[in-house]
Amino acid sequence: MINTLLLPELREMLETGDEAGLREFAGALHPARAAEFMEGLTAEETWRVLRAAEEARRVDIFGYLDSGRQVEIVESIAPGEMAPLMAELPADDRVDLLNDVDNAVVEEVLPLMAHEERRETLRLLEHAEGTAGALMTTEVAKLSENLTVHQALEEISRQAENLETVYYNYIVDDANHLRGLVSARQLVTHYREPNLRLADLAQRDVVTVHVDDDQEVVAKKVANYNFLAIPVVDDERRLLGIITHDDIIDVLREEATEDAHMAGGVARLDESYLDTPWYTLVWKRVIWLTVLFFFATFTISALTSFEHTLEKLPWLMAFVPLVLSSGGNTGNQSATLVITAMTNGELKAKDWWRVMRRELAMGLSLGLLLSMMGLISVSIYAWRTSATPDSTLPIPSLRDMLVVPITLIAVALCGALCGGALPLLFRRMGLDPALMSNPFVSGICDVAGIVIYMTVALLLLPQLSG
Amino acid sequence: MINTLLLPELREMLETGDEAGLREFAGALHPARAAEFMEGLTAEETWRVLRAAEEARRVDIFGYLDSGRQVEIVESIAPGEMAPLMAELPADDRVDLLNDVDNAVVEEVLPLMAHEERRETLRLLEHAEGTAGALMTTEVAKLSENLTVHQALEEISRQAENLETVYYNYIVDDANHLRGLVSARQLVTHYREPNLRLADLAQRDVVTVHVDDDQEVVAKKVANYNFLAIPVVDDERRLLGIITHDDIIDVLREEATEDAHMAGGVARLDESYLDTPWYTLVWKRVIWLTVLFFFATFTISALTSFEHTLEKLPWLMAFVPLVLSSGGNTGNQSATLVITAMTNGELKAKDWWRVMRRELAMGLSLGLLLSMMGLISVSIYAWRTSATPDSTLPIPSLRDMLVVPITLIAVALCGALCGGALPLLFRRMGLDPALMSNPFVSGICDVAGIVIYMTVALLLLPQLSG
Repeated sequence: MINTLLLPELREMLETGDEAGLREFAGALHPARAAEFMEGLTAEETWRVLRAAEEARRVDIFGYLDSGRQVEIVESIAPGEMAPLMAELPADDRVDLLNDVDNAVVEEVLPLMAHEERRETLRLLEHAEGTAGALMTTEVAKLSENLTVHQALEEISRQAENLETVYYNYIVDDANHLRGLVSARQLVTHYREPNLRLADLAQRDVVTVHVDDDQEVVAKKVANYNFLAIPVVDDERRLLGIITHDDIIDVLREEATEDAHMAGGVARLDESYLDTPWYTLVWKRVIWLTVLFFFATFTISALTSFEHTLEKLPWLMAFVPLVLSSGGNTGNQSATLVITAMTNGELKAKDWWRVMRRELAMGLSLGLLLSMMGLISVSIYAWRTSATPDSTLPIPSLRDMLVVPITLIAVALCGALCGGALPLLFRRMGLDPALMSNPFVSGICDVAGIVIYMTVALLLLPQLSG
Repeated sequence: MINTLLLPELREMLETGDEAGLREFAGALHPARAAEFMEGLTAEETWRVLRAAEEARRVDIFGYLDSGRQVEIVESIAPGEMAPLMAELPADDRVDLLNDVDNAVVEEVLPLMAHEERRETLRLLEHAEGTAGALMTTEVAKLSENLTVHQALEEISRQAENLETVYYNYIVDDANHLRGLVSARQLVTHYREPNLRLADLAQRDVVTVHVDDDQEVVAKKVANYNFLAIPVVDDERRLLGIITHDDIIDVLREEATEDAHMAGGVARLDESYLDTPWYTLVWKRVIWLTVLFFFATFTISALTSFEHTLEKLPWLMAFVPLVLSSGGNTGNQSATLVITAMTNGELKAKDWWRVMRRELAMGLSLGLLLSMMGLISVSIYAWRTSATPDSTLPIPSLRDMLVVPITLIAVALCGALCGGALPLLFRRMGLDPALMSNPFVSGICDVAGIVIYMTVALLLLPQLSG
């Protein structure tokens, strides 16, 4: 929601060139709130407000603007003005931003940054997106274990301005190997023992991630351990950087969105819905639609192969969509339950037998309930057909009427078992279980549903066979 | 994955009663890791290991056990042994745990806790689940603004043991009204100015949540502002407690799971898939299945009302599932994209016009692509029918063959527009857009699909009408 409360005042200050007023606005509110109030301004107006702010404030507020707006500003403002602000951004955010900005602009801005920031940026830009390396920042406090609590606090207070977090500080040896962790909590707790040495305080069993680890693995580790940050190391356990909790929250949100998209049959998007060009979205959707279309063509063959059956009892046809959607919906529910339980780590591949037993029980129960509803709707259909004198369709007999309810039990059971089993099978095959998307399960249930429906009809109604 | 590496050693130590060995195991690893290694033990064995550990360690490791195991232990161990550990747990975790434990056990354990912890637990137990009040902990550092940096650090170091976090400390007046925030980062940064007063350091524009706010609102605020914690206040802005980042990560995960369940047509679960009894799951599923079944009955009426058309050209029937699933899949994709974009805050109800234009463009493009595939599959069908001499179905004419491709353009367009519009409409009506679950969109697309299919057939093929 765009917060328009202060917009008129902001606009007036911009028109009259009231630099002092703008600086006050930027300084008075939490940077995240100031950014929120500025959502209604254009990129150019936003930059004019930021320029009036104090330097540290400018960087903070800029960091809270949404990424589309950040890109707009970077691409429209003179590189000479932009470079100092870019240099002040946390290294990981800077790299994320440069990844989104037009390459020509990046090439103009980079040479204008100080040597050290430029080198660091180039190094971070090298890591593949979606890995720990691309998420981490290099601005981490490294301490020697020979320091006392007092010396460590002094050291951190000196470096604080350039650190992403002061809450986790790492002990490294001369070759930068990770040797331990001292949290700000420990330092503050031992504030009354200033001469205690870090060597006696450090936690030695530090949980780390490897620089090439996937961001999903990193997020799960941090979330499970309730960490504020996690160190990133290379093969020789040298400390390369840290990933902080705010980046983890972003990853968790990204992964949730990606899973939802997969469940809906949309391939991974790199940007948000409104920022992705529509023709790119077409491409992301058509891949799955094609696969699903291919699956659906089997329903044509299935229906055609039962043409003789359907000709003899044409009213069976009217219930095809109902039968198929009942199976598909039950299957989707099972797949959704199993996939989310696996994503949350509550369910492992070895639990397959428990899943199958549960889905068997649920499929049967749901099938019985659907079957009762099916009996009601077949009865209504029979009553309405008998009440329509010009209908050419024969009125179903009592025996005919049992075909749909019995089929519904079988398709619900089939849906529950397929929906439960396929994600587990995918996991066992080393694939992402979320690939077993809802439309995919529906597709499989559709083909199975037709075969079940016709088989039940043939078995139950002797007049159909032969 | 159960980590079985140390299990044999642990079991041996348990058998031989090697208390010293068990204590060493519990003390050597990160508590989260120790908890992981113990996953393979029974509740009773786990408790024997914990009993051997030092008290603070015992509490830490217990906190990392999964909640099902925690409940098992609490319910099976003598209340007298359990109460001291319960009292040491962070207040919010204690309350979460007691909410899951059998009421009779709660009534035994509570009176055994110290007066203060008992009162606090009872107060927190009062807040409705899913609100800020139920998430918060009361163990927060409250400081007077008259303290200096040095005094504040001393004060925090004294209280540290009983605080959930030392990273955010709040300034309150004598009546407990929230007046400001001083982070550990600020204190450490100003370590070299020990006489600076908190009044000169405090951030005054503190972002808060109300005790009755929904947990989803809380999570979004913390995630957007990148906070480590957020203070919880009442109507008069009195500080009641704080919610820390680890609880926020749990909420984000919970909400993602809930959204996924809704998209799959499953009502909100209170426990994990394996922990929910199967008959409860049946109930959570049958609600949606019934609604969807009701929708699907409209397809019966739709097909029946076109019975005369279908009788004249029975092969049209074979393509019904293909046509319906194409529309449904396109609709699901659109709904998924719009719902996730709204959940992530990228899309607001006011953007409806942009969404409609995009879905129009995408629906048409996807429809054209599907239509080409449709033409191919109708051609294959015609070729196969003409090659089967005993088929009683007439071979489709060239004009007949156009019905399916044209229908596919229309159903894809209809799916894209419905899938895009319905979640926006739900939001505008004040409902959760995720309620417009995938099976629901499919159900609507099914009915629309039949009407479109038959209308196209009637318009294109003059022999069908009359």
